[in-house]
Amino acid sequence: MYRTHNNGELRISDIDKHVKLCGWVQKSRHLGGMTFIDLRDRFGITQLAFNENINSQLWEEARKINREWVIEIEGTVKERSSKNSKINTGDIEIEVNKLNVLNKSKTPPFTIEDESDGGEELRMKYRFLDLRRDPLQKNLVLRSRLGMEIRNYLQKNKFLEIETPYLIKSTPEGARDFVVPSRMNPSEFYALPQSPQTFKQLLMVSGYDRYFQIVKCFRDEDLRSDRQPEFTQIDCEMAFVNQQDVINTFEGLIKYLFEKEKNIYFKEDFPKITYEEAIKRFGSDKPDMRFGMEFHYIKDLTLGYDFKVFDEAKTVIAICAKGASTFSRKKIDELTNWVKIPQIGAKGLIYVKCNEDGTFKSSVDKFFDQKCLSKWANNCQAEKGDLLLVLSGNKSSTQKQMNELRLRLGKDLGLYKEGDYQPVWVIDFPLFEKDEESGKFHAMHHPFTSPKKEDVTLLSSAPEKVRANAYDLAINGVELGGGSIRIHDRNLQEKVFTCLGFSENEASSQFGFLLNAFDYGAPPHGGIAFGFDRLCALMSNQDNIRDFIAFPKNNAGRDTMIDAPSELDEEQKKELGINVVGKI
Amino acid sequence: MYRTHNNGELRISDIDKHVKLCGWVQKSRHLGGMTFIDLRDRFGITQLAFNENINSQLWEEARKINREWVIEIEGTVKERSSKNSKINTGDIEIEVNKLNVLNKSKTPPFTIEDESDGGEELRMKYRFLDLRRDPLQKNLVLRSRLGMEIRNYLQKNKFLEIETPYLIKSTPEGARDFVVPSRMNPSEFYALPQSPQTFKQLLMVSGYDRYFQIVKCFRDEDLRSDRQPEFTQIDCEMAFVNQQDVINTFEGLIKYLFEKEKNIYFKEDFPKITYEEAIKRFGSDKPDMRFGMEFHYIKDLTLGYDFKVFDEAKTVIAICAKGASTFSRKKIDELTNWVKIPQIGAKGLIYVKCNEDGTFKSSVDKFFDQKCLSKWANNCQAEKGDLLLVLSGNKSSTQKQMNELRLRLGKDLGLYKEGDYQPVWVIDFPLFEKDEESGKFHAMHHPFTSPKKEDVTLLSSAPEKVRANAYDLAINGVELGGGSIRIHDRNLQEKVFTCLGFSENEASSQFGFLLNAFDYGAPPHGGIAFGFDRLCALMSNQDNIRDFIAFPKNNAGRDTMIDAPSELDEEQKKELGINVVGKI
Repeated sequence: MYRTHNNGELRISDIDKHVKLCGWVQKSRHLGGMTFIDLRDRFGITQLAFNENINSQLWEEARKINREWVIEIEGTVKERSSKNSKINTGDIEIEVNKLNVLNKSKTPPFTIEDESDGGEELRMKYRFLDLRRDPLQKNLVLRSRLGMEIRNYLQKNKFLEIETPYLIKSTPEGARDFVVPSRMNPSEFYALPQSPQTFKQLLMVSGYDRYFQIVKCFRDEDLRSDRQPEFTQIDCEMAFVNQQDVINTFEGLIKYLFEKEKNIYFKEDFPKITYEEAIKRFGSDKPDMRFGMEFHYIKDLTLGYDFKVFDEAKTVIAICAKGASTFSRKKIDELTNWVKIPQIGAKGLIYVKCNEDGTFKSSVDKFFDQKCLSKWANNCQAEKGDLLLVLSGNKSSTQKQMNELRLRLGKDLGLYKEGDYQPVWVIDFPLFEKDEESGKFHAMHHPFTSPKKEDVTLLSSAPEKVRANAYDLAINGVELGGGSIRIHDRNLQEKVFTCLGFSENEASSQFGFLLNAFDYGAPPHGGIAFGFDRLCALMSNQDNIRDFIAFPKNNAGRDTMIDAPSELDEEQKKELGINVVGKI
Repeated sequence: MYRTHNNGELRISDIDKHVKLCGWVQKSRHLGGMTFIDLRDRFGITQLAFNENINSQLWEEARKINREWVIEIEGTVKERSSKNSKINTGDIEIEVNKLNVLNKSKTPPFTIEDESDGGEELRMKYRFLDLRRDPLQKNLVLRSRLGMEIRNYLQKNKFLEIETPYLIKSTPEGARDFVVPSRMNPSEFYALPQSPQTFKQLLMVSGYDRYFQIVKCFRDEDLRSDRQPEFTQIDCEMAFVNQQDVINTFEGLIKYLFEKEKNIYFKEDFPKITYEEAIKRFGSDKPDMRFGMEFHYIKDLTLGYDFKVFDEAKTVIAICAKGASTFSRKKIDELTNWVKIPQIGAKGLIYVKCNEDGTFKSSVDKFFDQKCLSKWANNCQAEKGDLLLVLSGNKSSTQKQMNELRLRLGKDLGLYKEGDYQPVWVIDFPLFEKDEESGKFHAMHHPFTSPKKEDVTLLSSAPEKVRANAYDLAINGVELGGGSIRIHDRNLQEKVFTCLGFSENEASSQFGFLLNAFDYGAPPHGGIAFGFDRLCALMSNQDNIRDFIAFPKNNAGRDTMIDAPSELDEEQKKELGINVVGKI
């Protein structure tokens, strides 16, 4: 046995016990004839004391030990003379009488501290060292605990955890698949699942009633900081449910997790907002509800003043930044430049300051008189001291741009506290979205989402108007999860495939098994999937999901530590019957 | 809301309640003016009653309903006149007053009963129907419950569940990898993990102390009934442990699962047997300990009788089948033919019957006199009425053949009861095994297994003699899991790579990250992995792991339901920069 205790558990009540401990050397301090070592493991830090007067040889050995060495010691628990109230073991130290170096360490390429001096690239290459840092350990411990709590809740609610396959069939629709050549079936490929969607639906057809899985999913897309080629989903499905049943069950899950993990109690039901309303009021289908600053559509109030920009715009949207009339010229210029960056893409930004004396100062003073500006202000419920910011253009891009500006201002003006959580269900999503280039319809969620009963007749006449039984949960502007009631009727599913441009052949070769299953007693069913990486980040008030994944990929999809992907052996390619031709 | 109760929960205490139920029609019976429907879901069966005299229209509708239709009903709970004690809801039935058909069903291609009339192939194609059968539902429910209990135990023991990546690096050693072409890194490939071995070791280097994961692993091997291209492992690792620490922890897990799931209490420690002894006594490194019938080496007792077969054999092994002297000529012929099938490969089988009158009757009577046969019998502790069976040849193949014969006889003679569980730890495995063809050494477990301290010096002089700190757990002849204490020292790891024939370059390009990690304070560590599919099958006294996997592949690695693998779109291949050249 290497140890009797871990480094987080010894207390004043353990005084005089003889103990064995193991761990890493966090740091040492030398004070005259005393050497102190902070011994670290996942559970905490324990101070080791070496006294020259008691054992000079041991003291000599201790002085030679460096950071990150792995050691094993035996000794007696003593009360500290100067206690450290910041750590659990701060009342005691170990008077060491036996020391064994289990492994030495080179000097790490960056410091193993909360704030490391290593750059992102270096820390990714030495991920095994980066993972020693306390913030990352806290993240992964949180993740492990959350996973367990999710399972506890779902199990109590009669969900079964059922594994679905990873080697499945490629479907060219939607995002790009990762594929796997099959050696046993030459010239054929498996695909890695983008989600277990069709399998969980089949499990409902099979009568499993309530399914869940915490499962890796794969999408071969270009990466951003909140996207990884492999990510983890809390994937759930229920039979004999309507939309409200699913919402109740999973609102329950989220409430349970916030109670368990953060002592946050949501007493009321999470608010619901329709997709249409969310876009209209906030320009986003995952609105940040921690603050107001809703959109005001003021195009009507701008007519007749010969201001071409607004006259030619399909829409003019204003938001009111409370108390921001004090913004400097510099700040407003900065915002103006910011909305023009390509990622946002606005043409310009117009402001109206509501001065304390009741007058208005605006960047379009030459076009609009005080009376007109006062109407704008009224419309936006602006008061003295507020600032109106106005964007214009075609409707949907202006809404998107204004969403960005609203989020930015919410942050700049400190309109919410860290630790605020404002969930909202966004419902009544459109079933389809139109690809502007091709004019084709795509499924907004996926092709298995059911249209609202009352909208089914629109499928042939006006597909763009069909609303879906689909719902997303957003918290603080982060889309945490989404789901829908699924189609369980073969004819309806075929009709939707037709709307999506599938030929009968395509539908049957790609999803024949599902259509087939619907012929044999498919129950009504629906479900939801949450992004587990995002949930962990959100519950820690952090943005970067990479910090919640033990071994993430970089933006080029590489693991620089193990150097993957890499070239294959010729022999392997031969066996698989594939050739690398390079990119065309 | 579709239902107020599921089909397994109504009891006599619910009499007169108005309820809503949903489910599948298991069967209907028509008795004069009464129609009874058994309504099924995952939770049970509830009887529905339709009475012509009470509601003739509803009764008419009910008569039209067929098997596997999905219906929704409302009605009142009534006490049954003739109760059914076989089901939990057998005291009640529902007097239905509202009926809604949610979905019809074609007649299934096989019956949805415990014993289906569908063949394997048909049931695989319609897996979603096969999964409705009670035996399969029981299996998957067991699996879900076991997964939860495993997590409960490991969490209580301070293990963290940490996800490791699925897109990793291909290593040509060991079994074949499944590979994944990378679009973002043209001409490079990821591999799917055969196990998270190196990552869990890195997590120990990172200080996570105790890790586990219930995780899919992938091996591109030719398939058998107990092998799948993707399978699930309970993967665990611990820091600062020796072999006995790991064994204690996971013997604890297995005992916990047997208690929770089967009310079986193992009071004693599981026995341990060395690899050498297991091979010697049972011819297997996963011996079935439910019965004896150990091997006896009798070559010495066969010398000097001019029986060429034995004289030329390296070894002669006998087992004693208690009370089997009554085996007929036919039975013995059958066994003789059976040991000669290619999968076993013996040249022949010799028997000695120990007659009740103290004489011996043998197939080699012309060579061996009664006195000699009596010596054999003595050596094997055979008594009157027993049967000796003897195989000969070179040592290791004879041991393997005799292992098969022993297992067969144990079954034929009923030497164990269903529900007997006899675990055994097999320890002190050799570190290497020699490939007979190439003369090269392979790692018996994997290249990261640590040699026993006292054997390290043999690494250069006599690698075949080096024993490993490796251990397997076998129950009833099934290898349930295995693990080892790992190497945590760079020099030792490099020495082992050398023994395995790795050049310095190969070692560094494939496992450089691990060697690198060992330079920065790697703690002593070790772990184990259990086959989850097998554990589930074993705990249900079943052999076929496919029955414990929701959507398994067939022996050709195909999912015939979804028809995977399949050919890729030209567009997909182009994007990935690969060409299918077919098999060479």
